[in-house]
Amino acid sequence: MDTFDAIGNRHSYRGPYLPEPVPREDLVRIMEAGLAAPSGCNKQTTSLVAIDDPGVLARVRACINPPLRRENAPAAICVLTQRINAYRDKCFAVQDYSAAIENMLLAITALGYASCWYEGHITDDDRLCDQMAEVLGVPAGYDLVCYLPVGKPDRTVRGPQKRPLADRAWFNAFGATQDL
Amino acid sequence: MDTFDAIGNRHSYRGPYLPEPVPREDLVRIMEAGLAAPSGCNKQTTSLVAIDDPGVLARVRACINPPLRRENAPAAICVLTQRINAYRDKCFAVQDYSAAIENMLLAITALGYASCWYEGHITDDDRLCDQMAEVLGVPAGYDLVCYLPVGKPDRTVRGPQKRPLADRAWFNAFGATQDL
Repeated sequence: MDTFDAIGNRHSYRGPYLPEPVPREDLVRIMEAGLAAPSGCNKQTTSLVAIDDPGVLARVRACINPPLRRENAPAAICVLTQRINAYRDKCFAVQDYSAAIENMLLAITALGYASCWYEGHITDDDRLCDQMAEVLGVPAGYDLVCYLPVGKPDRTVRGPQKRPLADRAWFNAFGATQDL
Repeated sequence: MDTFDAIGNRHSYRGPYLPEPVPREDLVRIMEAGLAAPSGCNKQTTSLVAIDDPGVLARVRACINPPLRRENAPAAICVLTQRINAYRDKCFAVQDYSAAIENMLLAITALGYASCWYEGHITDDDRLCDQMAEVLGVPAGYDLVCYLPVGKPDRTVRGPQKRPLADRAWFNAFGATQDL
């Protein structure tokens, strides 16, 4: 799929998904895309665990409470981060994993799958992410920060409406009225 | 350009650039790609200022000290963020602008341009970003967090080496030894 089409077609999808399994080679391509993202000072703070074993997926999903309504994808990718400094006291781990997630969402879209960036739901004060990490055997030093379902969407949905470009992008000065 | 090619070909480029101007329609396509990225609770915290006026570009670049050696691109995009909460006390502005930046880097690559994600250099304790924001008339409530040059690269360079996939991605358990 063309890059601009993937960027334009990507949107959050909250299910339901078709039961059709996701071939492991597709999950590998998606993870390769994620790990190709840049990282501050090339520290490569992001790691990934794909889940395609139904038993593991059920145990990870069972940690999410309240459950993600209608999220029944046959596979998922969990995003891990190491909060190590790029230099001095400067850490870009959030930037690093966010760029990796965006690459994966585009790869997921390009391959005809759907997904949704679930972060706040699992990293909130109740730290569901830590229970999910325990199921996956994630060691100390890594935080699980995001859960991405992967599967074929069962419905066609549109992304949310966004403010017009002219309200968020300008040339040469903030709020400039030149034609875009 | 195919999505996976853009993801695989994107890498940080630190100049020099060819003097060939960047058509405004390309800068618009790049900014549209950036603003198509997801944002936490669709808060759309990211805004952009593209610079293609040589005088403005010179004044913004003059804020960067020590200067970015060899960075002489004919255009640039400055990324602004509003650190507003998505819900309760949870702010995803860093995630939002990082996804937007990654989209723009892929769009830049797909259109045959090069760039580099300059963030730490300008957001360090000396807050060069605030001087840059002043040149662009950025009001209170918005932080300038990233400077992306845009131009045709004058040289061919390779991205940095990354650790093998098997060291950063696994199936169904952290560090699992299954074949990828």
